Amino acid sequence: MKNSARVTIADVAREAGVSKGLVSFALNDRPGVAAETRTRILKVAGALGWTPSLRARSLSSKRSFALGLVIARDPEVLGSDPFFTSFIAGVETVLAPEGLALVLSVVPDEETELQTYRTLVTDGRVDGVFLSDLRIDDARIQCLADLGLPTVTLGRPDQPSPFPAVSIDDTHGIAESVRHLAGLGHRRIAHVAGSPAMLHGSRRQDAFTSAMRAAGLGDGQVVETDFSIAAGADAARRLLSQPQPPTAIVFASDPMAIAGIGVAQELGVRVPEDVSITGFDDIEFARYIYPALTTVGATPLVWGRAAAITLLGLIRTGSADDVDLPAARLVIRGSASVPPPTEH
Amino acid sequence: MKNSARVTIADVAREAGVSKGLVSFALNDRPGVAAETRTRILKVAGALGWTPSLRARSLSSKRSFALGLVIARDPEVLGSDPFFTSFIAGVETVLAPEGLALVLSVVPDEETELQTYRTLVTDGRVDGVFLSDLRIDDARIQCLADLGLPTVTLGRPDQPSPFPAVSIDDTHGIAESVRHLAGLGHRRIAHVAGSPAMLHGSRRQDAFTSAMRAAGLGDGQVVETDFSIAAGADAARRLLSQPQPPTAIVFASDPMAIAGIGVAQELGVRVPEDVSITGFDDIEFARYIYPALTTVGATPLVWGRAAAITLLGLIRTGSADDVDLPAARLVIRGSASVPPPTEH
Repeated sequence: MKNSARVTIADVAREAGVSKGLVSFALNDRPGVAAETRTRILKVAGALGWTPSLRARSLSSKRSFALGLVIARDPEVLGSDPFFTSFIAGVETVLAPEGLALVLSVVPDEETELQTYRTLVTDGRVDGVFLSDLRIDDARIQCLADLGLPTVTLGRPDQPSPFPAVSIDDTHGIAESVRHLAGLGHRRIAHVAGSPAMLHGSRRQDAFTSAMRAAGLGDGQVVETDFSIAAGADAARRLLSQPQPPTAIVFASDPMAIAGIGVAQELGVRVPEDVSITGFDDIEFARYIYPALTTVGATPLVWGRAAAITLLGLIRTGSADDVDLPAARLVIRGSASVPPPTEH
Repeated sequence: MKNSARVTIADVAREAGVSKGLVSFALNDRPGVAAETRTRILKVAGALGWTPSLRARSLSSKRSFALGLVIARDPEVLGSDPFFTSFIAGVETVLAPEGLALVLSVVPDEETELQTYRTLVTDGRVDGVFLSDLRIDDARIQCLADLGLPTVTLGRPDQPSPFPAVSIDDTHGIAESVRHLAGLGHRRIAHVAGSPAMLHGSRRQDAFTSAMRAAGLGDGQVVETDFSIAAGADAARRLLSQPQPPTAIVFASDPMAIAGIGVAQELGVRVPEDVSITGFDDIEFARYIYPALTTVGATPLVWGRAAAITLLGLIRTGSADDVDLPAARLVIRGSASVPPPTEH
């Protein structure tokens, strides 16, 4: 590395005619430096093009100037979930201009995830983390609290948590989907749910059941999955192969809904003429398949941005408030329509 | 952070009855410690559960124990390209077991990308980087060479490069696609190309033209895009709205091909009866849409794994050989078939 050209604190001290210690105090904004002197040192440093060394800043401030995201997923299927890429892109819109880094880990299971948080702390690798995919009785909350690692949860946990939550109400969009389908005349509406062990999976499922009851349509048929595309396709095949299949299916994610449309078409079941399908997330593909997917727009990019701002605030000030983003809303496209005539 | 329970070099020294300096020498594998003493110190350290502090290792070794990936893309569209998520997942299969981190940056343009590399070096944030999306006359190669930052390029640059390249021959798969379509009887075959400023875009386009000529089908119609889904959809619409549309379209990426199938179906053009469509990458969606996509399997997960192994080798030994992964091969599914009868 060519560090020879780098401006050091010694250079600034020589040029400003003060001690290195005073320069260090001034540049690190510590008390004990007269305002006038501080201003002069900052001017000289600026003129020389001095930038703080991360290693030095890190050692003096005990900060690493990086945030962490640990994702516990099978690497093989992670690529099919555009949520994280969009979420990360949103985080980067905040970090990049500040010269902060995102440290990313993909781990196979919860045990490795907990160990990764411990190592991130031991190594002083990050100043805080985003906690995603909240689970029922989530062991990670206590682990992160014990570690004293500043954390922002994506969504509100179902247990006491010392951390600020940045949330999007996704139950509203599921309820809207059910009302939309009921309004079109559907009565046999099924739900392909995500994992009930994940909070967003179980909340969407509860929202589906509540909305079905409110519409006077009973509980509705529910098939639980692990949120993978393959499981979504299997669920669609099971539902559509029944003697009396549903006329509409509310999927808990867009990737599963897109696979569901593929399965229907493969079975010769027309979408939306024979079966209406809705998704959740509004990934970019949703607009480009045919029929285009009626879905709930969850804006992971906006979520990533808000979570990053909140986590930085927490790290810098020691506290941050919960943030409730606007509820995810139904986006109506071509994949949902009136039920087949025999059903009227 | 609860560091009170952490075992320090002082603890090991006390327990082993030697000086802290000797423990440090032994644990860092430096010369000057008798073999017997070293063994005893390592045993004591192991029994106490000592682990090296990253900050200490980093200061003594000048290593940061992290690799970097900088992606220059519009955050808004990054989520639609499953390539990077799968590539990153492959990288993580190598880094995670070694306790190494991946530092990820998403930047809007090349200028910011170059600045990000400089900052990563100044900050001692990473020990090496992956260079993706190689461009024609790629300014980043010289920048990284000047910075002295160990680098692995994904694919072979078209200019002198001091860095090992980990490559998948993707031209073979495009040629196979053209031969497959020609063998089915297609003669008007078009190509929806990626960006000609990106090496993989221009190479796939060259491979298409060469294969077309070799099959005696002329140059074939080519529409260049920026690799975005939106541009792929636009290109498909233009091609299929012509008075004499192609009977087959070879897309340079799966996301564009999936959008192409959507556009065809929206226009009432049946796939594959009226138009055959092939893609590139074999993303998971390719198997789940209908008709399932005939495409070239590029295995980004395997690529990420190989690139990580190569980059770690380069960092640890100072040199690494180029790696040529098995050529990407055509995966035949339902989206390509014989041309319509009138074309026979």
